[in-house]
Amino acid sequence: MTDHQHRIVVIGAGFGGLETVYRLKGTSASITLIDRRNHHLFQPLLYQVATASLATSEIAWPIRHLLRNRLEVTTLLATVTGVDSNERRVLLQGGDSVSYDTLVISTGARHAYFGHDEWEPFAPGLKTLEDSTTIRRRLLLAFERAERETDPKRQSAHLTFVIVGAGPTGVELAGTIAELAKVTMPPDFRNIDTRKARVVLIEAGPRVLAGFAEDLSDYAQRSLENIGVEVMLGQAVSECTADGVVYGGKILEAKTILWAAGVRASPAAEWLGVPADRAGRLVVSPDLTVPGHPDIFAIGDTAAISAPDGSPVPGIAPAAKQQGRYIADVIRHRLRKADAPAPFSYKHDGSLAQIGKRRAVIDFGWMKLRGALAWWIWGIAHIYFLIGVRNRLSVAISWWWIYTRDQRSARLITQGRSAPGQTESS
Amino acid sequence: MTDHQHRIVVIGAGFGGLETVYRLKGTSASITLIDRRNHHLFQPLLYQVATASLATSEIAWPIRHLLRNRLEVTTLLATVTGVDSNERRVLLQGGDSVSYDTLVISTGARHAYFGHDEWEPFAPGLKTLEDSTTIRRRLLLAFERAERETDPKRQSAHLTFVIVGAGPTGVELAGTIAELAKVTMPPDFRNIDTRKARVVLIEAGPRVLAGFAEDLSDYAQRSLENIGVEVMLGQAVSECTADGVVYGGKILEAKTILWAAGVRASPAAEWLGVPADRAGRLVVSPDLTVPGHPDIFAIGDTAAISAPDGSPVPGIAPAAKQQGRYIADVIRHRLRKADAPAPFSYKHDGSLAQIGKRRAVIDFGWMKLRGALAWWIWGIAHIYFLIGVRNRLSVAISWWWIYTRDQRSARLITQGRSAPGQTESS
Repeated sequence: MTDHQHRIVVIGAGFGGLETVYRLKGTSASITLIDRRNHHLFQPLLYQVATASLATSEIAWPIRHLLRNRLEVTTLLATVTGVDSNERRVLLQGGDSVSYDTLVISTGARHAYFGHDEWEPFAPGLKTLEDSTTIRRRLLLAFERAERETDPKRQSAHLTFVIVGAGPTGVELAGTIAELAKVTMPPDFRNIDTRKARVVLIEAGPRVLAGFAEDLSDYAQRSLENIGVEVMLGQAVSECTADGVVYGGKILEAKTILWAAGVRASPAAEWLGVPADRAGRLVVSPDLTVPGHPDIFAIGDTAAISAPDGSPVPGIAPAAKQQGRYIADVIRHRLRKADAPAPFSYKHDGSLAQIGKRRAVIDFGWMKLRGALAWWIWGIAHIYFLIGVRNRLSVAISWWWIYTRDQRSARLITQGRSAPGQTESS
Repeated sequence: MTDHQHRIVVIGAGFGGLETVYRLKGTSASITLIDRRNHHLFQPLLYQVATASLATSEIAWPIRHLLRNRLEVTTLLATVTGVDSNERRVLLQGGDSVSYDTLVISTGARHAYFGHDEWEPFAPGLKTLEDSTTIRRRLLLAFERAERETDPKRQSAHLTFVIVGAGPTGVELAGTIAELAKVTMPPDFRNIDTRKARVVLIEAGPRVLAGFAEDLSDYAQRSLENIGVEVMLGQAVSECTADGVVYGGKILEAKTILWAAGVRASPAAEWLGVPADRAGRLVVSPDLTVPGHPDIFAIGDTAAISAPDGSPVPGIAPAAKQQGRYIADVIRHRLRKADAPAPFSYKHDGSLAQIGKRRAVIDFGWMKLRGALAWWIWGIAHIYFLIGVRNRLSVAISWWWIYTRDQRSARLITQGRSAPGQTESS
């Protein structure tokens, strides 16, 4: 280490990046946290904004506000365009750059279309706050358009909602959209019966929630079918258009398609000119550094590493936080010139997914839960992991209202144009 | 009246239109409520969304949800393009039309630039939910840009906020932005002292809050100056650009200009081919019908009519609601073929404006209030007039947090591009 103040730059204020900064509290280093958004996002509940259950501000916090008391931390709203690892500089859009001694890359992932990026306009994915309000607008507009449509075939296409991918996000979207259509919406419309809406969940693999134990997958599928979701397993989508999807050689006419099937890491590998795995992730060393770059760490969805049992570390919030905690520890050891700690070892605490009201699954490995108890634990755990008393209170109230009255308060069509007669700008 | 079911069409679900529909409950008529947004908006608190104090869903409600139990009411999300008053049809974008026997036009107003529409991109106004998130984005980005700017002159332009027009909206915006800069923001930034931000309120007339008693105007001005707002009276703005405003021959460099100076009614007069006043409003008869069109009513910001004392009825929510209540009564009389009720007579209940924490003015005419008591009454009155227990509770909690901790939770930069290095799409 040099004798000037050690400079740590963290790119990305998601779960991993923020945890790194939190855990570096009290070191002598100066820290710069760069993000192209001004807010940290609680992604596990993003689907609830997309389905009008929560407001945007309930799951997002201004990053610089979270770190206001950490005077050694500078928050920078900027877009990173590259990394000069020889000069140890992070390059920013607009021409500025930031020097580092240690760099942490925690830039996450975007949804990916398996080489079919042309599907994106027809099948938006769910990663950012803007994604969630875009999906919310499309969902709500679909009902509005159906209400005004007189042709039965087109009306039914407006009332058909396809979700591609049956991981936790796909399952949670499908379940909530079904509840919207079957429980929340019916009294509001005059020309259509929203309970006749079709919610179709298409999955290429053999079961829903592949990351969970098989009996929980079965339970989740039965629960989805009970609330009216059509679950199509072993079906790969071969085409998405403005009119619907093609899968298994069949065309399903649907005006709303949501993409929950694949993700691709941010272009960090390109910045560094190092190899990436198929999903674009940096294959990192056991101490989470990038091979050949001992001063650069990669964590979270940007990094590929295996758990002790040989399975890949999953792209979920707890994994990113564990990695952030670990590398903060490595950096601390380095700063005081101590021996490096043991290699990173991922510990899977459990998997949770909500399916609908009083229906969730939790797979702790050593214990499996389903049904109402799992649902309450799911809810309490998510409120616990939110940041700050205010948002916990606010989300608890929102959920209480949904629970007791089936009313979803954030049913707002914003951005783009709002009336169905107009062309929507996506 | 004909012997088919009487068809009432209401265009616009603002305070006036919604009140009309509420008050027509129990009649034999069928009602169609058309709006180009899916939500009713509580406009008096829109500036609080623009200043990151409240979330969008706290002040907006899905229209069809508000009317879900009124089975005779059909809500239509559509943009009106004209009215065929001979055929008695409302024309919709996309080619559809809706027939009426009685038409209510309550389409409100947009901000207006006194013939300088080219100023709009540089000086956005505040009428819709999208306007408020646009302004919020600009305000928050200005601080972010200042934080990254090294040139002192440009930095100070980023930290100069100009509000044009010192009516209630202008005063409330100026006061809240000053509090944001002086109280909420300082701990979050490292390179700038946000307390040095300039908030400049420019007004062409001789005093702020011209609709209030003079001593309340004086108090409001002193209060604004106490929290650091520079109040410029008797100054007409002659130019708005991307770099600032020109007034009184002087150039003030400012990257953020907000427009709260003038409104213009929606194009209802053009739809009907009847004369309008200077602000585009339909000059209506004493029963609020459009002269020559006894079956068409115009109310709220779309209508021009005088109060009993000869002054114009102001463009505020209580006035629109009184008019809605009145015409619902007229329509009820007509439906049962009774004599028409007495002409509309506006009763001014009072004017309220919030200036900052514990500072507000209330002018009841017979009583004038200022300071902390006025502020509490202002807050309680606004919570009372919100719709539904849930939003009242939610707004009360948001305000409590701001009151006790000076934290504003909705500081989210969304829509457009988020990083300062990028060009913002406005």
